[in-house]
Amino acid sequence: MKQLILGGARSGKSVLAERLAKESEGKVVYIATSALIDDDPEMLERIARHRDRRPKAWALIEEPFYLADAIQINQSPDNCIIVDCLTLWLSNLLLQDEGKYFEQQKAALISLLHEFQGNLILVGNEVGMGIVPMGELSRLFQDESGRLHQQLAAVCDRVILTVAGLPLVMKGKTF
Amino acid sequence: MKQLILGGARSGKSVLAERLAKESEGKVVYIATSALIDDDPEMLERIARHRDRRPKAWALIEEPFYLADAIQINQSPDNCIIVDCLTLWLSNLLLQDEGKYFEQQKAALISLLHEFQGNLILVGNEVGMGIVPMGELSRLFQDESGRLHQQLAAVCDRVILTVAGLPLVMKGKTF
Amino acid sequence: MKQLILGGARSGKSVLAERLAKESEGKVVYIATSALIDDDPEMLERIARHRDRRPKAWALIEEPFYLADAIQINQSPDNCIIVDCLTLWLSNLLLQDEGKYFEQQKAALISLLHEFQGNLILVGNEVGMGIVPMGELSRLFQDESGRLHQQLAAVCDRVILTVAGLPLVMKGKTF
Repeated sequence: MKQLILGGARSGKSVLAERLAKESEGKVVYIATSALIDDDPEMLERIARHRDRRPKAWALIEEPFYLADAIQINQSPDNCIIVDCLTLWLSNLLLQDEGKYFEQQKAALISLLHEFQGNLILVGNEVGMGIVPMGELSRLFQDESGRLHQQLAAVCDRVILTVAGLPLVMKGKTF
Repeated sequence: MKQLILGGARSGKSVLAERLAKESEGKVVYIATSALIDDDPEMLERIARHRDRRPKAWALIEEPFYLADAIQINQSPDNCIIVDCLTLWLSNLLLQDEGKYFEQQKAALISLLHEFQGNLILVGNEVGMGIVPMGELSRLFQDESGRLHQQLAAVCDRVILTVAGLPLVMKGKTF
Repeated sequence: MKQLILGGARSGKSVLAERLAKESEGKVVYIATSALIDDDPEMLERIARHRDRRPKAWALIEEPFYLADAIQINQSPDNCIIVDCLTLWLSNLLLQDEGKYFEQQKAALISLLHEFQGNLILVGNEVGMGIVPMGELSRLFQDESGRLHQQLAAVCDRVILTVAGLPLVMKGKTF
């Protein structure tokens, strides 16, 4: 089953993804998309907090750019793959070399998802329900985030919006 | 039927509105509210993208300010009117002459909707679920947007929130 | 019953809270959390608008910091307590003395809610669904707001998200 979990900041997306992965009974492969480009103590702390919460038995893959490849390599009926999160991956791609690899990598992901067999849980930030941002890059990011979520939602079996740690099923089987 | 479709940036609001209009089997009248005040290439590109998606048979009306009038003139049992979008119309009114026409135009719209017969689909951006913006005008915009949506939701038969291209029916008949 | 009402700016949170309080048939105690630190005419106007809407018979308590205490003192089977709103309280605590009292006050609130008997309606702003803000304090505020809502949602009997004045029940009894 392919699942997409969207939610605002600190809305319980990752915790829900981790719970669903545990329930899947597969071997969990956790793909972290954070790019450790610079020494950002705030980001390092967030990463450490997420890592401490995860079972030690889970495989960890750090892949900030080539997400489709990282998913494909780990595709197996025995695995449950978590991608946490789409938003960092999108941000990495839009910031790298003026976004020149973005369309290609996004197309690779969507194309892979059409074929994908097995358990996959994608986590993304809902960033489109505030005031339209002033900066051009922020607007581009907001637009591409929304487009990406739409395209992924169309190929996923279940789509969940989390609010205050509670899941709202937008598509697929309810809890 | 009067329908209100709300959603974040690139959440699939317009696509849903256009689908519902096609299904209505009426003659579609599309009211675009964008004000071409200045040479904004980003806005021009957005408008072109929307226009290319729409059937050529649809009537197009461009009305950035006098929305109630534009709806009233096209009111007919044979028509399905789309307004895309409320947010640009609100923004146009708040920016024009320090917002002096806003209350009057809003009152005219609400008043018309109470009487309106026929098919009407209103599209608006949800902009109130992010951090409260720093600028006074942005806060005013956020507040007036929320108030407008509340008032419209109260008189509409169906209210839908779109997330990632998926509809969540908040009021009225589910899909 | 403990209820948590979340929603964006001008989404109808307070109006819903006041309606539910009226229906509870208890004596309503309204806890306002706004800190009148400076002469903010916009805030004063908002407060006045809220106050004018409330029945004169309701008890009003202004408590910007010690929320757990204010709730506990008014705990009674005959009372229905409204807290409007959590977001101002959080903001007050994070801004006061570099946030040094925040963790303690939050722990006191969560701890009280586990024990609380009676009718309580908590109102908070959903602020996490826009672009991640640039400022460090805004990001901290967004994160703490999300965490607080998760923790409160876990101990409340009903959680409601308001959009355009319409309630979406995320947890507990639907309307």
